[in-house]
Amino acid sequence: MDFFEAVSRRRSIRNYSDRPVPPDVVNRAIDAALLAPNSSNMQTWKIHWVRDEQKKRELAIACMNQGAARTAQELLVFTADSILWKKTRPFLLDSIKDNPRKDLHAYYGKLVPFLYGYRWLAPAKWLFVNVAGLFKPMVRDVVTSGDLREVAVKSTALACENFMLAIAAQGFDTCPMEGFDKVRVRKILNLSRRTAIVMVISVGERTERGLWGERYRIPRSEVVFEV
Amino acid sequence: MDFFEAVSRRRSIRNYSDRPVPPDVVNRAIDAALLAPNSSNMQTWKIHWVRDEQKKRELAIACMNQGAARTAQELLVFTADSILWKKTRPFLLDSIKDNPRKDLHAYYGKLVPFLYGYRWLAPAKWLFVNVAGLFKPMVRDVVTSGDLREVAVKSTALACENFMLAIAAQGFDTCPMEGFDKVRVRKILNLSRRTAIVMVISVGERTERGLWGERYRIPRSEVVFEV
Repeated sequence: MDFFEAVSRRRSIRNYSDRPVPPDVVNRAIDAALLAPNSSNMQTWKIHWVRDEQKKRELAIACMNQGAARTAQELLVFTADSILWKKTRPFLLDSIKDNPRKDLHAYYGKLVPFLYGYRWLAPAKWLFVNVAGLFKPMVRDVVTSGDLREVAVKSTALACENFMLAIAAQGFDTCPMEGFDKVRVRKILNLSRRTAIVMVISVGERTERGLWGERYRIPRSEVVFEV
Repeated sequence: MDFFEAVSRRRSIRNYSDRPVPPDVVNRAIDAALLAPNSSNMQTWKIHWVRDEQKKRELAIACMNQGAARTAQELLVFTADSILWKKTRPFLLDSIKDNPRKDLHAYYGKLVPFLYGYRWLAPAKWLFVNVAGLFKPMVRDVVTSGDLREVAVKSTALACENFMLAIAAQGFDTCPMEGFDKVRVRKILNLSRRTAIVMVISVGERTERGLWGERYRIPRSEVVFEV
């Protein structure tokens, strides 16, 4: 399907038909999700595809039993955890070992561990970037655990959008949900408290009443500015 | 362009050619960005398209003068601010006034102001959702300013991905940047401290040396789980 057609087709669907979604459709969308850009290519995301019937029911209930979850053919949970940098960095260092770009080696060899590690140094790092920042441009945000969480959540959201568009491009539908009980979802998937549950995404084929109305957007002039 | 072709084509480009990007290409991508799904349709995003040459230079410097910014034909800053719910809600209430779904009216009429407003009630809200959550599923996260910031950042990231894919689908290239000095970017665009600067995205046509190498992804089994 044409890219812009997929963007127009994608709507949040709150009621699905009984038609099953072929696993290949979901797998192809997962592959597209994993091609999203992400911070320093640290790939700090995880995709949990809940296929067990009992767990699916529990997850739907944890999503406040809303129609988008209850009638879903498939349910996936996208999570973010910046600690994954510890797995990705050695993999990347190995992958780029023959790459002639020295700055790439310095970036993954030295800068990434300084940014993602040494969290106990956060107050010192904060002081350093904000004092040095008085004199020259400095990246201020990759300092605290909260900053790193936001960075990981952002990258995962980019992957979520690829996933939803890829499902639309294959003629099926999705609904991204943030209305869930994170404590219960964490228990169902056995996630650590550190893990950010970015979204639950349901997949299926839309029914007529699954679409709640027109697509309303506030006037472009309220949100787009040329400066 | 086919959706999956656009996903494959999109790579982070760190050096652009001198070929200008027609404004229509950027505008079409902005329109696609604004069709992204977003939390409660509150559209808590803003897109700042920096066209003034002086401001563009300043912004590139605030992006650590990296090639992806310095050689860019166009630079856009995507921001998030949950306070925008105050503009969106009356607009939506007006748009849905003839919609027969009562739950939709209750959602925007009552639930949204309770979730997004009354931030001084955050401690009481926190206590309520976590005590009630012992007995039944409860959404725990839309309570503090930090929670609302994360929700707004997430929605904006979805829009960013639509934007980047839409540029790719039109044969041009992008680079999402988080390596910027937020204090300087804030000054250049005259943003409030509350505004989250989600990413700076550059646009142009790739040069050969703009692509730094292969596309490395850690093995799928490390990040995708069927449960």
